[in-house]
Amino acid sequence: MKIRNIAIVGGTHGNENTGVFLIQKLRSSIPSYKNLDLQYLLANPLAIKRSKRFIDSDLNRAFRVKDLQDIEKPEYEFNRAKIINNTLGPKGKSKTDFIIDLHTTTSNMGITAIFCQLNAINIQLAAYLKSKFENFFIYYMPPISEGEDQPYLDSIAPYSLAIEVGPVPNGILRYDVIEMTEKTIKATLEFITLHNNGTLPKMLGSIEIFKYYKTVLFPTDIDGNITAYIHKNLQDKDFFELKNGDPIFHTIKDQTLYNEEVEPTYPVFINEAAYYRKKIAFSLAKKISMPVQQTQK
Amino acid sequence: MKIRNIAIVGGTHGNENTGVFLIQKLRSSIPSYKNLDLQYLLANPLAIKRSKRFIDSDLNRAFRVKDLQDIEKPEYEFNRAKIINNTLGPKGKSKTDFIIDLHTTTSNMGITAIFCQLNAINIQLAAYLKSKFENFFIYYMPPISEGEDQPYLDSIAPYSLAIEVGPVPNGILRYDVIEMTEKTIKATLEFITLHNNGTLPKMLGSIEIFKYYKTVLFPTDIDGNITAYIHKNLQDKDFFELKNGDPIFHTIKDQTLYNEEVEPTYPVFINEAAYYRKKIAFSLAKKISMPVQQTQK
Repeated sequence: MKIRNIAIVGGTHGNENTGVFLIQKLRSSIPSYKNLDLQYLLANPLAIKRSKRFIDSDLNRAFRVKDLQDIEKPEYEFNRAKIINNTLGPKGKSKTDFIIDLHTTTSNMGITAIFCQLNAINIQLAAYLKSKFENFFIYYMPPISEGEDQPYLDSIAPYSLAIEVGPVPNGILRYDVIEMTEKTIKATLEFITLHNNGTLPKMLGSIEIFKYYKTVLFPTDIDGNITAYIHKNLQDKDFFELKNGDPIFHTIKDQTLYNEEVEPTYPVFINEAAYYRKKIAFSLAKKISMPVQQTQK
Repeated sequence: MKIRNIAIVGGTHGNENTGVFLIQKLRSSIPSYKNLDLQYLLANPLAIKRSKRFIDSDLNRAFRVKDLQDIEKPEYEFNRAKIINNTLGPKGKSKTDFIIDLHTTTSNMGITAIFCQLNAINIQLAAYLKSKFENFFIYYMPPISEGEDQPYLDSIAPYSLAIEVGPVPNGILRYDVIEMTEKTIKATLEFITLHNNGTLPKMLGSIEIFKYYKTVLFPTDIDGNITAYIHKNLQDKDFFELKNGDPIFHTIKDQTLYNEEVEPTYPVFINEAAYYRKKIAFSLAKKISMPVQQTQK
């Protein structure tokens, strides 16, 4: 199957300026992928205007089919999701073949490609990107239960990824984060062109993927105030192995709390600002290996 | 004059979590400065709850005497300012001798002590702190015109400083920023104790101070959208000398813009998230030298 209709989306979270800036940049530049039909979208314009992650609720959790069908859901983001689904979708028989959704994080995640579906083409793309860049990670968010519908914007299209770059504070532009995002967009469009032409290079036999496993909350007091911060040994150590007994928190009483997971895990989204409202300190992933399909010309 | 009544203030900006956390920590710890009367204050509780810099307007610009006297100013922050002024002030004949106001920045400013008044004791404190820490800077925000009233919270008291630590994203806690802030609070209280006891050590003869000079805006298009980001050579170079012709911006058209200031200056608050709403890219300071008064026992 050829991939022709591609949407590049920025500002799904309104305070992640990098994607917003790059959509403006791409719109004002001369298109250089003549066999691809590229569309650019600022997903959450009111949140962008107010430099907030969202107005009422997270737009990137508003794309479940049942929510897209519920026309009385009141929040701004559920309305936006329907408009975006009409424009790029509809989910399930989408006129868009491929979605690239641009995100940033306050966590030290380098360049991370986040996938919400692990089909053969997405895995080939992951392998292609991993072969091109240093400090590049593949993160897979599986559905809550097997076969369950995903809530993410990029789940509208059959093929997609979210490009997650950090660390960067919300509300600012940083040259390095912009450059990393730009080169990942460019490499993804290169991959699609090679795929369409049947000229993909020989791939790695398999790739390492970090698969979401569980969420770790901050310790809190009875009023819900956070009473500890990320331990210095863990801060900025996204995708490093975390062993049983490793320090994870430093408390307001100057005590250290330790990791109680028996098996090794890999922390991700360590100290992401957006997750403080849910008291989430970091997530844990497990490492899996996925075979990469070799494409014959 | 002895300094007895000291207020330590956090959360003047509600999304600068470090100060909020440290006020909670100080309140729950055993006081160890028995000759000092320490008071702790969370300045903007609603903004803290919502993890926003402010609700209606910047609380740290709400402390001009004329605004404190205007009881019909409607914004949440002007109301907070009056309550804080009643509690710690009143400005001009304050019951608080010394205010320490805790701030963070997304800029790479290390530990910066910001003064809004350069009296003999504040300058001695600056010299004391500078002698204790690496990567420590003194920044002076002069009044808009000579003798003009200052709008800052810490201008209520005759002696004061704002402790500004960065880089850190808004809305998160980082161990290094917390530790730098804690040690600066501790050293300030040590200084006050030495001052009160007449046992200050011999000081440097003079200190280097960065004095605010002017503000540099981001380039924008006719709709007010920012069309350039901080050049990679300038990013994170707070307090480094900026010369005529040095690159400062990288534009959406991939062009470089250069510094046109003839005299050398020192950029500060480079890429501070809170200043994007005013399209401020960074400020420029000039270096001045101030003599330090030697205290005789």
